[in-house]
Amino acid sequence: MFTCDKNRVEETIKAFSQFGATEGGGVTRFALSKECIAARDYFVKRMKAAGCVIETDDFANVYATLPGSQPGLPRIVTGSHCDSVKNGGNYDGILGVIGAMEVIEAIVDQNIPHRHPITAMIWTNEEGAVYIPALMGSGVVCGKFDKNTVLASVGANGQTFAEALDTSGYKGEEKNRLTSGSYKANFELHIEQGPILEAKSKDIGVVTCVLGMVNYRIKLFGQSNHAGATPMKFRQDALYAAAQAIVYLHEQLDRLDPALVYTTGEITCRPCIHSVIPNYVDFSFDARHENPKVTAQVLEIIQDMPKKFAKCRVEVQENFSRETVYFDKNLVATVQKCADTFGYSNMQINSGPGHDAQYTAGVLPTTMIFIPSKGGHSHREEEFTSLDQCWQGINVLLGAILETDKK
Amino acid sequence: MFTCDKNRVEETIKAFSQFGATEGGGVTRFALSKECIAARDYFVKRMKAAGCVIETDDFANVYATLPGSQPGLPRIVTGSHCDSVKNGGNYDGILGVIGAMEVIEAIVDQNIPHRHPITAMIWTNEEGAVYIPALMGSGVVCGKFDKNTVLASVGANGQTFAEALDTSGYKGEEKNRLTSGSYKANFELHIEQGPILEAKSKDIGVVTCVLGMVNYRIKLFGQSNHAGATPMKFRQDALYAAAQAIVYLHEQLDRLDPALVYTTGEITCRPCIHSVIPNYVDFSFDARHENPKVTAQVLEIIQDMPKKFAKCRVEVQENFSRETVYFDKNLVATVQKCADTFGYSNMQINSGPGHDAQYTAGVLPTTMIFIPSKGGHSHREEEFTSLDQCWQGINVLLGAILETDKK
Repeated sequence: MFTCDKNRVEETIKAFSQFGATEGGGVTRFALSKECIAARDYFVKRMKAAGCVIETDDFANVYATLPGSQPGLPRIVTGSHCDSVKNGGNYDGILGVIGAMEVIEAIVDQNIPHRHPITAMIWTNEEGAVYIPALMGSGVVCGKFDKNTVLASVGANGQTFAEALDTSGYKGEEKNRLTSGSYKANFELHIEQGPILEAKSKDIGVVTCVLGMVNYRIKLFGQSNHAGATPMKFRQDALYAAAQAIVYLHEQLDRLDPALVYTTGEITCRPCIHSVIPNYVDFSFDARHENPKVTAQVLEIIQDMPKKFAKCRVEVQENFSRETVYFDKNLVATVQKCADTFGYSNMQINSGPGHDAQYTAGVLPTTMIFIPSKGGHSHREEEFTSLDQCWQGINVLLGAILETDKK
Repeated sequence: MFTCDKNRVEETIKAFSQFGATEGGGVTRFALSKECIAARDYFVKRMKAAGCVIETDDFANVYATLPGSQPGLPRIVTGSHCDSVKNGGNYDGILGVIGAMEVIEAIVDQNIPHRHPITAMIWTNEEGAVYIPALMGSGVVCGKFDKNTVLASVGANGQTFAEALDTSGYKGEEKNRLTSGSYKANFELHIEQGPILEAKSKDIGVVTCVLGMVNYRIKLFGQSNHAGATPMKFRQDALYAAAQAIVYLHEQLDRLDPALVYTTGEITCRPCIHSVIPNYVDFSFDARHENPKVTAQVLEIIQDMPKKFAKCRVEVQENFSRETVYFDKNLVATVQKCADTFGYSNMQINSGPGHDAQYTAGVLPTTMIFIPSKGGHSHREEEFTSLDQCWQGINVLLGAILETDKK
């Protein structure tokens, strides 16, 4: 089995941690920001030096391709994203780019024979931290989003995404997009972003699917009055109603499958003054599960919610939903076999978070490889995965690509 | 019994509703804003025309004094505030100013004999909507606040209160402040800001006290992680914890005296993103009751709260508290007698909200007169009290002042 260069992986992690470095040891590297462009430039320089041909498509997705020995074969692709959330960490997304670079460089260094072209990729704007929607580059390329709608997306700086693309220096041609015919398989290496691999002491997560999800907004309509002058029995307190609704949802949903995850992460309160009874509160509701039968049970609970809490009217608004995306069974088996061959402890796992791979899965055979996240943390500066764990993940990535190359 | 001029009251209400008028029919008239200055100018013009001497003190409180027939007697004062919250109504505060103006003008018009000087007042910055603390003018004059601290208070516009005072044109001398020796009694007419008088079909609220209150901030410390990747059993969700804490407080506090009012009006959530488990939530807790024994029971419940909700640590921070302020028994009896004499239905009532009168009560005999608030609403554009109700309230105010003048 070929392995990658642990020292080089360490250097590459360090190098990327400088682009948009924050005081707390993380990064803020918004899509197409100057920090993000610096990271892309570094990727391009290293990949050119390794002998890759660089292409970009009309959404600034970057493809660095190392030719294979047998002409006319489709490419095997691997990569992820280099943009981050505000005060994000040094592993989410960028680790998949580092892994892709290391696969290319290990193949070149060790002169590893391969028939197919191997492409290392950077997807544009996975996080959607400035320009919505998230998963933008892969979403457009894989036909999930309308190009013009996405180009018109306006960031907090007032600039449209089209303008950001034009000034990025990375806008290429539509003909360079990843397509079904010219690509054979896609592997995305990523940190788990959850605590399961660490809790179960596993080196590698063999990812089988990205969970289906539903996203709602629960709204409570009350009545504002003075906190000191309004007897309790006259009140319609929308925050008390929201508290009851959140507790109610937990009581109902905790009876369902224990693998269900659901979150009320965002709350709005009006007028939000200590001396005034709130007249309006809404909160987000996000629920994810692999099995659509469980998701249907969740929807039933949402729809059967009481129409009032604490005399406040309840309104339920559906925002969006997605079905579970299953990865290619052959590629999943290949990843598992590679992990076993290396002797790395591993388990099948699903992905709750969304990834670019969930969109490419609709276009070509795709799968993902997870490695542990310390404390299950992600989207924060404390994000950490040890060098050994990164190295093992990249070894499995390299092995799975070389195994796929044989077929 | 003398009565006031209903038509003039109607005109005065309309006149003040123009200063800072909002599209929704209310007013935004922040303390010492140009809209507030215009309202003060209007007050001064009318009071000068009625024969009053105008004075202002070092906190821009305005005193318009009509001389009495007997030299050397202390003044009888009545007034309230002309500043409002954002999108406030046409009655809170300003009605007490309108009542004071009408008392002066009715006395002059009808040539009503009176021995004491009668002073109509505007207190500065009762609402604290831009510069904290609220009740600023009365608080400094009555020795509740440190002058220099208050002068350094910075508004949302970056200006200090001292700067706002300097440019207001209303800054006068400290020697003009209301004092114990030179004032005999203070009456403040105000809308109830609650639903009780309306619910009990009473014309007049004979106010006996301003309720004691406690103000706390309840903080919940959780752990942020990805909403899709973190199994429920690994979570420390600070918003779920806050929801449990709010429901818990209601369950415990609803067993206490039914006259207790308490409110969780303000909530903060971090990071407040739909796909992230909240790591920190805090909410305000405001409780008010006349009886300190009940307040002590509230404190006991707060202090005995569980140390954790949903695995999140609970921290309780006391912000401030005040004891119940009782009004002068003789003045309360005078108000009640006047209301009875007019044949206005009335009841004794306490004030949950704070008022400038609660501070003057520590300096000289003071009381308040309430009139109904439609729907119990205040601090909003829909605030409404009928012209008849206003007129009745001002008649009682005039009667109580003339009755006090005899003693």
